[in-house]
Amino acid sequence: MTELKNDRFLKALAREPVDRTPIWMMRQAGRYLPEYRASRAKAGSFMDLCTNPEMACEVTLQPLERYPLDAAILFSDILTIPDAMGLGLYFETGEGPRFKKTVRTEAEVQALEVPNVDDSLGYVMKAVSTIRSALNGRVPLIGFSGSPWTLATYMIEGGSSKDFRRAKAMIYDQPEVAHLLLDKLAQTVTEYLNAQIRAGAQAVQIFDTWGGALSAQAYEEFSLRYMRQIVAGLIREHDGRKVPVILFTKNGGLWLEKMADTGCDALGLDWTINIGDARRRVGDKVALQGNMDPAVLYASPKTIRAEVKRILTDFGDHPGHIFNLGHGITPEVDPEHAKAFIEAVTELG
Amino acid sequence: MTELKNDRFLKALAREPVDRTPIWMMRQAGRYLPEYRASRAKAGSFMDLCTNPEMACEVTLQPLERYPLDAAILFSDILTIPDAMGLGLYFETGEGPRFKKTVRTEAEVQALEVPNVDDSLGYVMKAVSTIRSALNGRVPLIGFSGSPWTLATYMIEGGSSKDFRRAKAMIYDQPEVAHLLLDKLAQTVTEYLNAQIRAGAQAVQIFDTWGGALSAQAYEEFSLRYMRQIVAGLIREHDGRKVPVILFTKNGGLWLEKMADTGCDALGLDWTINIGDARRRVGDKVALQGNMDPAVLYASPKTIRAEVKRILTDFGDHPGHIFNLGHGITPEVDPEHAKAFIEAVTELG
Repeated sequence: MTELKNDRFLKALAREPVDRTPIWMMRQAGRYLPEYRASRAKAGSFMDLCTNPEMACEVTLQPLERYPLDAAILFSDILTIPDAMGLGLYFETGEGPRFKKTVRTEAEVQALEVPNVDDSLGYVMKAVSTIRSALNGRVPLIGFSGSPWTLATYMIEGGSSKDFRRAKAMIYDQPEVAHLLLDKLAQTVTEYLNAQIRAGAQAVQIFDTWGGALSAQAYEEFSLRYMRQIVAGLIREHDGRKVPVILFTKNGGLWLEKMADTGCDALGLDWTINIGDARRRVGDKVALQGNMDPAVLYASPKTIRAEVKRILTDFGDHPGHIFNLGHGITPEVDPEHAKAFIEAVTELG
Repeated sequence: MTELKNDRFLKALAREPVDRTPIWMMRQAGRYLPEYRASRAKAGSFMDLCTNPEMACEVTLQPLERYPLDAAILFSDILTIPDAMGLGLYFETGEGPRFKKTVRTEAEVQALEVPNVDDSLGYVMKAVSTIRSALNGRVPLIGFSGSPWTLATYMIEGGSSKDFRRAKAMIYDQPEVAHLLLDKLAQTVTEYLNAQIRAGAQAVQIFDTWGGALSAQAYEEFSLRYMRQIVAGLIREHDGRKVPVILFTKNGGLWLEKMADTGCDALGLDWTINIGDARRRVGDKVALQGNMDPAVLYASPKTIRAEVKRILTDFGDHPGHIFNLGHGITPEVDPEHAKAFIEAVTELG
């Protein structure tokens, strides 16, 4: 493989000193970029874009052409796994993701098969290797997956949900059925991320978007437990390099110590926790990634710069910080504001 | 005034010993009750129901007829204040609250008048005195208001919002304008709650529904600061009794110590924090109210009972616990499940 020209991101994940704080943005290849919207229009549906390795590669690289980012992230969707399990993912305009089939009963959970990821998700591995090759060592490539709990909520509810009524009824009333489902998902996520690593992903992130909707007890039993299982099953060294794992539970600020105990290398932080407090709580155990409120990108470049400085100061002079937003960049953000954000980090970090 | 026959709730707020843990439910007078839906249909619109003191009294008492609850809460809406400020509140079916006018510019904030609450919100005080009289000392009556930040989000956005883009742009780009708006709101909320207390409210709760959407820094500067100002301005003793204040920031679990420092008597907890951990953090400084996930009410009565027991055990054998849900009861809950929940608390608490 080609030599990596920019290893700031991987060094920071290993809590090694770096010349400046590395930065990438969750959902950096996305609708806020006109070139992304053009590619999306060319590809057809969102899933057409995800399943076409050349197109997925094209949009993955777009933000790197514009901005001095320190990592690329595979362009894909967290719901490719339930789709590969036969649920039939589709997107309703303005409604978000939907599944043709849901998984709600014990029989439906039992009937669910752990897919062979190289077969059913081969298009993702092909995208990873295509992107890795196109990057040519410019920056590292991040692979990712949704967490078992997060995937389960969509599979049980049939799409997005406000209160996760059915998913929560399952964990409370039929915990053994929920555990069977989550275990199948954890096995699949492990295989999926390992296949991405073998295909060229140099770090992986687990997105636990909806773990923060659970009670503290339910989070440990139904979300964290399966992320720990995944971390334990991942390839941690590949091609002569460590492959770091980042755990991101949105609204998980209360549970950082427990997340840091899973064996992961870094925690993704949303913006509700002060990053200095987070560091004091987890110490040198893990690196921290985050944590600017994506809504700050609607403010002026001057304000954005001040907020970047504030977060850098709060983190302090330690190794192990990867700058990022606390959640994905939103479609209405002005690309010039994203630029002001990234430049502020590269200048002040 | 009539003697109070059931003072469990007020005693627990004062962290005095009680015979059993008191219980009430946020939004206990609401759509999950068929008798509420009948009253609502009779009244006309939701605002017709709020502005009619006799009808507001009728629905306030409905849950008390069904369940052995230890407190009544005024039936009203958090958005009566912006409505009294001239923004024109209305409800779009399935869309939630909307305002005819928004407040986005410095000129619009400056033009905003702090209303005379006895004039413009007289219907609320009339509802309070009507309910208090109808209760006849059965249980205490809780008054309430939205927090300044929570009210400001609706006023700036013009209704509900997913990311509070405009409200956040205001606090970040025009902090002095945001402070002027929040100060006007804090003055109004203080007058509003004091008027409710004079009309007969025996405790008050401030609902900071959207404080948890802010960064830790922004929460302190733009939400907590104004709740502190309100707490300092409230009537704390009336008619020979202390009038306790409950502060509830949804998703505020990271900031409990700071909330407890405002001088309030109790903190409302959502379900993401373990109530035992919360108690260890705030000690005997304040009482704690909460904290069952409302989604547990979709589970079986047996599961509901187990979750009640778990929360009681986690809180432990101390004074100062008021049982409640971690957020409002949702419209689709079976009233029999609400009954199972309340009975479990009265039997196990």
